[in-house]
Amino acid sequence: MPAPLRFGSVPRKHSKMKYERTLLREVKGYVPGEQPRCSKVIKLNTNENPYPPSPKVLEALQSLGPEALRKYPDPVALALRETCAERYGYPAADWIIAGNGMDELLALALRTFVDPGDTVLAADPTYSLYEVLCALHGATLQYVDLGPRWQLTEAFFQTPARLCFFTRPNAPTGIAASREEVERFCAVFDGIVVIDEAYVDFADDNCMDLPKRFENVIVMRTFSKSFSLAGMRLGVAVAQPPIIREFLKTKDSYNMNAVALAVGLAALQDYGHMEANVARVRATRTRLRDALVELGFDVPPSQTNFLLAQWQGQPSAKALFEALKRQNILVRYFDLPRLRDALRITVGTDDECDAFLAALRTLLQALGG
Amino acid sequence: MPAPLRFGSVPRKHSKMKYERTLLREVKGYVPGEQPRCSKVIKLNTNENPYPPSPKVLEALQSLGPEALRKYPDPVALALRETCAERYGYPAADWIIAGNGMDELLALALRTFVDPGDTVLAADPTYSLYEVLCALHGATLQYVDLGPRWQLTEAFFQTPARLCFFTRPNAPTGIAASREEVERFCAVFDGIVVIDEAYVDFADDNCMDLPKRFENVIVMRTFSKSFSLAGMRLGVAVAQPPIIREFLKTKDSYNMNAVALAVGLAALQDYGHMEANVARVRATRTRLRDALVELGFDVPPSQTNFLLAQWQGQPSAKALFEALKRQNILVRYFDLPRLRDALRITVGTDDECDAFLAALRTLLQALGG
Repeated sequence: MPAPLRFGSVPRKHSKMKYERTLLREVKGYVPGEQPRCSKVIKLNTNENPYPPSPKVLEALQSLGPEALRKYPDPVALALRETCAERYGYPAADWIIAGNGMDELLALALRTFVDPGDTVLAADPTYSLYEVLCALHGATLQYVDLGPRWQLTEAFFQTPARLCFFTRPNAPTGIAASREEVERFCAVFDGIVVIDEAYVDFADDNCMDLPKRFENVIVMRTFSKSFSLAGMRLGVAVAQPPIIREFLKTKDSYNMNAVALAVGLAALQDYGHMEANVARVRATRTRLRDALVELGFDVPPSQTNFLLAQWQGQPSAKALFEALKRQNILVRYFDLPRLRDALRITVGTDDECDAFLAALRTLLQALGG
Repeated sequence: MPAPLRFGSVPRKHSKMKYERTLLREVKGYVPGEQPRCSKVIKLNTNENPYPPSPKVLEALQSLGPEALRKYPDPVALALRETCAERYGYPAADWIIAGNGMDELLALALRTFVDPGDTVLAADPTYSLYEVLCALHGATLQYVDLGPRWQLTEAFFQTPARLCFFTRPNAPTGIAASREEVERFCAVFDGIVVIDEAYVDFADDNCMDLPKRFENVIVMRTFSKSFSLAGMRLGVAVAQPPIIREFLKTKDSYNMNAVALAVGLAALQDYGHMEANVARVRATRTRLRDALVELGFDVPPSQTNFLLAQWQGQPSAKALFEALKRQNILVRYFDLPRLRDALRITVGTDDECDAFLAALRTLLQALGG
């Protein structure tokens, strides 16, 4: 027997991996917003819903017995997909696929419809995970800059690609392109259009009907935001059955655990609970935006559960982000060209937003020019 | 507005997908063993554990509150990985990655260490999912036939590949290669060796120590079999930290939900419960094998929770499979060249196995030549 390895002393040659794929050498991986272990933090940085999920969801969770854990779950999530179909106005489960979070479905869209080497289109700025997923898949993400007011430009409509991530409402701007723009894009784009509706329950309208009319459209939803279920990893995609059949080929055979299936079903069955939470968030969003505008921030009208608060004054947005963090108030700061002058603030409860605003006012008075 | 789509009449052109990847055209997807909806079935077909998981697991599940669901889970599963490290004799979490079922980790191994076009090695017959995963990734699975008594052959040791799925104990044969063979293979193989230990808790020994000595070895475990948690989708992989760092780049950012994390932790903390269940399964395995041998079946000594019962007599193995199914007794039949004369039987409870044996005896008397 060789001598046992001394732990903590992995040989140095390992730091450069012999077995890695060249493709992965430059990939850094996605960096999620911070999840503090301390509970005294006011957490307005990862767009979670500040209100709890439906009590029916907890009931569904707690009523699961040993048999549900012991046996394999339904590999095709039929009950959940049937309930989704009914809720979203589709005739049957074969228009729906369920995912272990919408992130899994985004990755799956690339694996299912994009060959390595192909081009993928997205507007910039947008959800930064797309770039990581494209790098992992060996696809090229072609960004087209949004205009000065974060609107889509003609160049976006004219850029050919195999697949487009169309984020509506967009993150981190909070703005939703008009439905007319979406429809025009779906009609002209010769490839798969993934309409990322992660935040759409907070918006005035949605595009859930478009898969009925366009064979190239996939609408994706997450349960993380509006349903207050970020911890459960639940997402769905809606598209015409031939698209869904391809997804079913490429997904992990048992991609959803038994608890996620039960919880997702319960959440959909208590849809009114989600809608009531969304109404509260929208009301707070209006109050928070008004207060930020009054303080001199430039805040695009948001269709989501967050606000992009742009700030040209002193102290800088980055200094504000850091000063707030020292007070245990977390918001999101992106060190990216067009976002350095902005904070992205999740709409929390009224109390959380008031505490944030009070801290912000004090900082502006103490540190301001 | 265009006319609304008439449901149930997706245009015919859709049946041939315009947007599919050429790669996927021939891929059929993995076909899991049947999951009957009726509960009166004796289910010996998908290698689930017949005994319930630890009561501590249920407690952990039921003690989860709304906050655990509302907030994002720990993206790097630190608590679970730390507990795994301790349990498996490793110094820290950076030797471990957790997956949404071991199936996710198998797919991830290809995405992390194999370029499309590369060759992957496996012995034949083995877990049929490998072939599906390779096809989806665009890798070539090179099978090397096992010998007449299902043993590894020299050709297996001499076949070059980027990665090898080394299944120990193997499925569906139930046989474990000797540790000496595993070590010899790991030393000579110039690529990543994934030692699939899905069934190893039912075996006499394991290879969990090998990642300490081999920089190219990944040992994978599932909670589906020995821990009675197939419904939860929980798997772990153990390897040197540079390997784990690559995995962390390629996995979905939040691949484990909050419930799976809590349940996995509780299962590891009540390890004795799993070991007691395993001891019961092993005792039943001996009884079941003895009875099958007495009936004239050729049954390789199994290190797993199933038996491969080979049968040259009349009625054929396939006819037996079908006749048992009509009596609501499900076993697994593989319509594959070297497996057509065999049934794969999961070791159930003593009562389930007795019912199976009684039915089998009657069939052999009634239908036998």
